[in-house]
Amino acid sequence: MTTAEIITIGTEIIAGQIVDSNAQHIAKKLTEKGIPVLFQTSVGDDKELLKSTLRIASDRVNLIITTGGLGITANDITREVISAFFNIPLIPDEESRIRLQKYFSNRHTNRKDEYRRQCLIPEGAIALHTDNGIATGFAIHHKKKEIVCLPGSPREMQPLLHKYLKIYARQHKAEKGCLVTRNLHTFGVSERLVEDAVKGCRTNSGQTKAITLVRGGVVTINIHTTAEKENKAVRLLDKAERAIRRKLGYAVFGEGDETLEYAVFVLLNKKHKTIAVAESCTGGSLSDKLTDISGISKFFLEGVVVYSNNAKVNVLGVPEKLILRHGAVSLPVAKAMAKGIKKKASADIGVGITGIAGPTGATPGKPVGLVYIAVAKNGLVRIRKCRFAGSRIDIKNYSVNTALNMVRLVLLDVM
Amino acid sequence: MTTAEIITIGTEIIAGQIVDSNAQHIAKKLTEKGIPVLFQTSVGDDKELLKSTLRIASDRVNLIITTGGLGITANDITREVISAFFNIPLIPDEESRIRLQKYFSNRHTNRKDEYRRQCLIPEGAIALHTDNGIATGFAIHHKKKEIVCLPGSPREMQPLLHKYLKIYARQHKAEKGCLVTRNLHTFGVSERLVEDAVKGCRTNSGQTKAITLVRGGVVTINIHTTAEKENKAVRLLDKAERAIRRKLGYAVFGEGDETLEYAVFVLLNKKHKTIAVAESCTGGSLSDKLTDISGISKFFLEGVVVYSNNAKVNVLGVPEKLILRHGAVSLPVAKAMAKGIKKKASADIGVGITGIAGPTGATPGKPVGLVYIAVAKNGLVRIRKCRFAGSRIDIKNYSVNTALNMVRLVLLDVM
Repeated sequence: MTTAEIITIGTEIIAGQIVDSNAQHIAKKLTEKGIPVLFQTSVGDDKELLKSTLRIASDRVNLIITTGGLGITANDITREVISAFFNIPLIPDEESRIRLQKYFSNRHTNRKDEYRRQCLIPEGAIALHTDNGIATGFAIHHKKKEIVCLPGSPREMQPLLHKYLKIYARQHKAEKGCLVTRNLHTFGVSERLVEDAVKGCRTNSGQTKAITLVRGGVVTINIHTTAEKENKAVRLLDKAERAIRRKLGYAVFGEGDETLEYAVFVLLNKKHKTIAVAESCTGGSLSDKLTDISGISKFFLEGVVVYSNNAKVNVLGVPEKLILRHGAVSLPVAKAMAKGIKKKASADIGVGITGIAGPTGATPGKPVGLVYIAVAKNGLVRIRKCRFAGSRIDIKNYSVNTALNMVRLVLLDVM
Repeated sequence: MTTAEIITIGTEIIAGQIVDSNAQHIAKKLTEKGIPVLFQTSVGDDKELLKSTLRIASDRVNLIITTGGLGITANDITREVISAFFNIPLIPDEESRIRLQKYFSNRHTNRKDEYRRQCLIPEGAIALHTDNGIATGFAIHHKKKEIVCLPGSPREMQPLLHKYLKIYARQHKAEKGCLVTRNLHTFGVSERLVEDAVKGCRTNSGQTKAITLVRGGVVTINIHTTAEKENKAVRLLDKAERAIRRKLGYAVFGEGDETLEYAVFVLLNKKHKTIAVAESCTGGSLSDKLTDISGISKFFLEGVVVYSNNAKVNVLGVPEKLILRHGAVSLPVAKAMAKGIKKKASADIGVGITGIAGPTGATPGKPVGLVYIAVAKNGLVRIRKCRFAGSRIDIKNYSVNTALNMVRLVLLDVM
């Protein structure tokens, strides 16, 4: 059974200057392939500390994946430390040399020689290349251990990891039972309800397992099944998924990397509908999320951020007396915003969000976290009064996710 | 000399379901206090693996900080493992009990008994509390090692870490030389230029050090100085900072946690200016960033996301013939957008951004990453043509940062 440790190398990580998103990416991909990650370790650009980290890792797992330290500066120590630790000499990789030559053929640099270091890999290692960059990664098999070294730039690391995992899958196909995993994302139901729905699909034989995880109001179910053969494992997984979907219905909005905004995009495309949004407390965050999706420009007509009362009146035609009577943060104003932006942009769907993101701005009866969301379509306006907790950023985020989910349900004709 | 290891505990981390931002936060705070972090380790909710992790950590550092596993579910194993590993019994902490009682006095739950587990701490430990939640953290001194256990929720973890670091500072005051650090953030100059400016401030005696780090176009300089006494170290740091600022001038926009949007907010406030923004390819991301700042509502009047040509014409009054002649992604259109939104919102400053965020949408002569940014103020429009590389999200992010920096320079009257 393969077990893995991920080692991220870099003083910027160990000093807390950047979040280690590489470790998360690699852990996710390994887990999806059924390789349990037992440890993640981060260490600075220090030869002795890296060596001791490798020593510990090779005592406790059989697959070690490192990222970082494959560049050309003095701080890039991974190649040399791996070579010294496993006592394998470094030799130039021919394909890397050719790629580098090609790369520099139309570029001017006085650092060509320094870059030659990037072509060095341990003797007997498999070199890993990507068209996204000039770093060379590599994988070595040494005394029943597998060591894979990847660059630190995510743009280069991710395709190289993908390549390695293909090699891994080929080599380990026959060895073991097959594990298949899938993530289902839900919104609008509590974690407790999701937990109850998930319980039934867990099998006593332990072939099917499921765990839940909450983030930004999204409850994700991670289902994994094991069986001797892949098609059996997939069958089990499909069965579990069907059971969960039956119980949770429209609360399930996507799987894998699918986000709420992606689910909305797919539905807009399917139903040939256009959308426009008017935001107050979320300050453009809903527009920002929607426009993260490539291809949305066909359906997303316009967004406005109407922070001031003036803008609400002048831009969206919200009646001034409505604001005076109910306040800017109120149900009637959210409704008028949704209808106003729909009309203004000639869109099929209009969204209005108004609330108090905090930490200041609360008034008697209107606490921080109070948010009204309205979705207008076909002369009907669906509304929701929410009360969110957390920081300013949390409240913006919950509000945007709730609005996206409302749009999704409206497009599905179930709200 | 204190050296630290951070251990984050949780299967959701080890399986790659969430990014481990706690480790980064703790590493940053320790580094700022002059405590070098040698290792960060993540491990799942597994008693034996956590024990082995503690064994390794206590062999290689003298300060261990853990997060996670202090809740009330079966997966919360930290308290019990610490107790077993160091052979110290768990006892109820009186203040925690009182806090819990108070918390439940106006809440209904049938899980009161389960929550009592949260009051248990190792005998002799210092309990750490926060008003942000009901988790109890603790710090133990055991055989010259310091072990600090914090909850996994950032809202609870961060104030408890802060409390612990105050205790640490009191205890270690006399022990060692003082290290002071500061981060300076720059924008608009290359890392190489920043590196050159930084070189001169490094002292031969090694009392002053500086490293640079790039993210989203922002180049951050981390300066640290050491001296016997704190005021000497601060004097050295101030000197280094003055030298760097002299060389880099207006490229330095902030320090510590200050962002470009915060720098813009401070200047808008100081100069009593209002702003409105018109975004195409950035899709609301500029508005979103500005409205992350609490208090911006006084200065940020309006944002529009004009994805379609129609919206550019109807909402902003961009002349249709301009779009026909030059295309929507062009300098004249960016200018017209900036002037249009400025006029529409009666703002002092108007920003227009148009470009191709990709991955599709490139046309001959207009590649992915081509972005035009315009800032209008007092009848003058400053413009910039940019060519960014990376993913759709990267390009949105670079564009927003470049626009924010242009607004900053315009407000400083240096652009």
